[in-house]
Amino acid sequence: MNLLIIGGSDAGISAALRARELDSTVNLTVVVADSFPNYSICGLPFFLSGEVPDWRNLAHRTTEEITDKGIQLLLNCTAQTIAPQQKIVTVVDREMRSHNLNYDRLIIATGAVSTRPQIAGLDLPGVFLLHSMEDSFAIYQYLTTDEPQSAAIIGGGYIGLEMADALTHRGIAVTVIEHSQTVMKTVDPTLGQIIGEELQRHNVTAVNGVAIETIESKGTQLLVKGENYHTTVDLVLVAVGVKPNTDLAKTAGVNCGIKNAIQVTRKMETNVPDIYAAGDCVETWHRILNQSTYLPLGTTAHKQGRIAGENAVGGNQEFAGTLGTQVVKVFDLAIARTGLRDSEAQSAGIDAVTVELETWDHKVYYPHAHKLRIRVTGDRHTGRLLGAQIVGHYQGEVAKRIDIFATALFHGMKVDELNKLDLSYTPPFSSPWDPVQMSAQAWVKAQ
Amino acid sequence: MNLLIIGGSDAGISAALRARELDSTVNLTVVVADSFPNYSICGLPFFLSGEVPDWRNLAHRTTEEITDKGIQLLLNCTAQTIAPQQKIVTVVDREMRSHNLNYDRLIIATGAVSTRPQIAGLDLPGVFLLHSMEDSFAIYQYLTTDEPQSAAIIGGGYIGLEMADALTHRGIAVTVIEHSQTVMKTVDPTLGQIIGEELQRHNVTAVNGVAIETIESKGTQLLVKGENYHTTVDLVLVAVGVKPNTDLAKTAGVNCGIKNAIQVTRKMETNVPDIYAAGDCVETWHRILNQSTYLPLGTTAHKQGRIAGENAVGGNQEFAGTLGTQVVKVFDLAIARTGLRDSEAQSAGIDAVTVELETWDHKVYYPHAHKLRIRVTGDRHTGRLLGAQIVGHYQGEVAKRIDIFATALFHGMKVDELNKLDLSYTPPFSSPWDPVQMSAQAWVKAQ
Repeated sequence: MNLLIIGGSDAGISAALRARELDSTVNLTVVVADSFPNYSICGLPFFLSGEVPDWRNLAHRTTEEITDKGIQLLLNCTAQTIAPQQKIVTVVDREMRSHNLNYDRLIIATGAVSTRPQIAGLDLPGVFLLHSMEDSFAIYQYLTTDEPQSAAIIGGGYIGLEMADALTHRGIAVTVIEHSQTVMKTVDPTLGQIIGEELQRHNVTAVNGVAIETIESKGTQLLVKGENYHTTVDLVLVAVGVKPNTDLAKTAGVNCGIKNAIQVTRKMETNVPDIYAAGDCVETWHRILNQSTYLPLGTTAHKQGRIAGENAVGGNQEFAGTLGTQVVKVFDLAIARTGLRDSEAQSAGIDAVTVELETWDHKVYYPHAHKLRIRVTGDRHTGRLLGAQIVGHYQGEVAKRIDIFATALFHGMKVDELNKLDLSYTPPFSSPWDPVQMSAQAWVKAQ
Repeated sequence: MNLLIIGGSDAGISAALRARELDSTVNLTVVVADSFPNYSICGLPFFLSGEVPDWRNLAHRTTEEITDKGIQLLLNCTAQTIAPQQKIVTVVDREMRSHNLNYDRLIIATGAVSTRPQIAGLDLPGVFLLHSMEDSFAIYQYLTTDEPQSAAIIGGGYIGLEMADALTHRGIAVTVIEHSQTVMKTVDPTLGQIIGEELQRHNVTAVNGVAIETIESKGTQLLVKGENYHTTVDLVLVAVGVKPNTDLAKTAGVNCGIKNAIQVTRKMETNVPDIYAAGDCVETWHRILNQSTYLPLGTTAHKQGRIAGENAVGGNQEFAGTLGTQVVKVFDLAIARTGLRDSEAQSAGIDAVTVELETWDHKVYYPHAHKLRIRVTGDRHTGRLLGAQIVGHYQGEVAKRIDIFATALFHGMKVDELNKLDLSYTPPFSSPWDPVQMSAQAWVKAQ
């Protein structure tokens, strides 16, 4: 049996590894568009900050660790078309030679590409997107040879703020320009404001409510302009999100839906027989909304890839659904969320209510206690937990506290039931009622 | 309605606060044996280490915060007898005057007392137990006036090791003497060994497999002796566990069971009408074992107290059961567990199997990654998660990772199902599969 996988990032490699784990005889081939299979794209900001000195360390696994498992990697090969009747994928290698690859089962894991916003001047030297290893090398090259002193980052989301941190770490003066009224619009504005203050504390200028329209050359610099706003900098980074990379899938007649992402079943099957898809190129089942959405995340890509790999060799796994759990570190803050925010729940027709609590990560008498801001969202009528957001010091176990909420959400717990959980306590790490439970109590009391 | 509560620590105060929260008219009286209601007993080692300079900061709440809610505190009063027919409790105050208190409902929250092992010489000057505020003051007095240079701690459990850390922090040379072959016998020996190495790294001498038989005066020092072992030190701390404080309850005809703890329903009712009990003096329902056990923990005391307080004013809450979730910090290590270990499951007739994984708390390319050792215990036949133990650096989010396991355990998840959880990831805090999930995968693979 030939299992062909297109895409060598999280979903593709996870699929290959899982298929191999379950089936030692299947022929496994992964088509990789660049030379960097199984790289941690999430780690790129830390390479660019200088915290990860060697980009090779970003590999989840070395090429040898993958090929040693009997997984063939076709590096620097780009798939051009899929012929589902003949079960053939046509790929082009670095020398632009065309090859036909046969498959019995195919997994499409082509990921996402950076969104290019409607801004004039995106192709000027010194203007960069950041999604791939190559993007990263281009920025690195510019940082080390041109030694920019100032940078504008267009987009105050995850990548934008991680890069604000990274470039500040390099000594560059950073301005973050965000279209919304607060940065990190994936969390509620009261939390976005705390993040804004953290940026300020680290001398990052945050400009909110401005849409950039043009970037122009100005001597050796770049003039970045929006309505009633302009700034002149040495480097511009555009980080306004990603979109699914699905042109190839369409050549096979694979159906796409939300934001042009591939429609899949919870078994990661497309509408075309023997073609699966997984990762940032597919629609993702949302466990709370009970419907598909587009929510590209590395964690989800790993899970979906694993399921696609298992099912492609005869398994019968179903994706349990995403909760959109995510965390990011920006300077000394960890910012985390899971499930639905108020506005998202309201859009889905749920009468949601959110309560915010400020408390300490551990007993305040023990040194180095940090404040946490926790927002809990629940269903006003049923009391069901819908989501949570936490912002606090990165040593306040924010990430794994959001995971307690995520695990509770997975099981459809009511907010009040969080008080039944037997969570760990010692004064250096928590309180007898963990902050997770204190925030649940605050929510219940406010009803 | 008169609600009388005997005991001013975690369970008693939680009961009072919850009763007041739900019922603004009930007369609430709490009988407190000392002057320190609602103190964080778990914080005593950090007062003795010097990390908490003022013991008053150990109060969860001030006396005023409690009395302001209309809760009457009878400080320095000891309950002597309960007459359940007449619904009268006789208490003795500091001046040894006797008073009769009427109640409609009574909550017994008398806690636990330190176990006094069969060792000759426990009453010598310089020999201490540690459970109450008074114990703590006595030790503090000795530390500051006698300035001991060396200490032996008998018992290598939670309190023993926290005190080893605390006394080392003060510059005292510490020897921990533990009857078992490894310290911290509440975790498996492979983890106990890591803890032993951490003690060594901080110049604490750990003596294992020795039972101390006598303590004798030797000049101004103390000679601590067991079979084939002796040491001479300035200070001896005995920390071999606690036992329920239930003599009072017996005067009311309340039934006691395991280790003499009070038998209660999951509504925290005793066998005597209108008498509830909660906290370290009661048997505790175990959620996995589906039966009662004795497992005194502050978190459980808070939960049980809250339920007793609610039910005493007409509520109908049930205790969801303990998982024995606990965490302790010893020097740079966090040591956590939840649920059952192999041996505990086997004793309960469950065919359990445990798999250990060593991994990193976050992507190793990002600075300051720490190793975690995770042991997962599951049911060999059903695949059900039974428990987990983690040892790792205290900044590795060990405590809240054990809570992910605890939340999964609460819901009876199978080990394999942990892979379905949507947990948070960013390189500074985790991996795309959190270590919790990696250890679950290792468990599944080993079956």
